[in-house]
Amino acid sequence: MSFWPFNGKNIEMADLIGYIAACFTTFSLLPQILRIRRLKEARDVSLFLPLMIVIGSVLWSVYGVLIKSVPVIAANGVALIIALITVFFTIRYR
Amino acid sequence: MSFWPFNGKNIEMADLIGYIAACFTTFSLLPQILRIRRLKEARDVSLFLPLMIVIGSVLWSVYGVLIKSVPVIAANGVALIIALITVFFTIRYR
Repeated sequence: MSFWPFNGKNIEMADLIGYIAACFTTFSLLPQILRIRRLKEARDVSLFLPLMIVIGSVLWSVYGVLIKSVPVIAANGVALIIALITVFFTIRYR
Repeated sequence: MSFWPFNGKNIEMADLIGYIAACFTTFSLLPQILRIRRLKEARDVSLFLPLMIVIGSVLWSVYGVLIKSVPVIAANGVALIIALITVFFTIRYR
C-alpha cells in the first residue's frame, strides 16, 4: 500500500504538464532577445546567462543521445539555438 | 540488433552529464542577479524571462510530483527560488 496520492491515471496529465513546462523554460530567452532588439541595448544583460544555457543545452543534448530520448534532444536543440542568438545579440548591443 | 552506438555502460556517464547539465541550466539566472545588483540597473532585462522560468519551474515541479521524481522536484524548486529573486531584482531596478 502506497500513500502517494496519485495513480496511473495521472501519468497522461503529467506528460501534458511536462510538455507545457518544457515550452515555458525552452522559450524563456525569446522575450529577452526581443527586448534587446527593441531597445538596441544589452548592457544590463549578463552574458553568462545565455552562455550557461548554451553549455547546459549542449550537455542536455549529449544526455539525450546517451539515454536515447528524442524529446530531450529536440527541446535542447531548440534551446541551444535560442541561447546562441541571445549570446549574439548581447555581445552586439553591449 | 541495434545500430544505436551506445550501450548500458554509457548510462552512468549519462547520469553524470545530466547532473552537470542540470547545474548549468538551474543556476543560469544567478549571474544575471549579480549583474543587476552590481549595476543597480535592470532596464535591458526582460521581466518575461524570469517570469517564464517561474511558471515553467512550478509546472516542472508539479510534473515531478506526478511522476514521483525527487530530482525533478528538487532542481526546479531551486530554479523557482532563483527565478523569483530575479523577478524581484528586475522590478526593483527597473
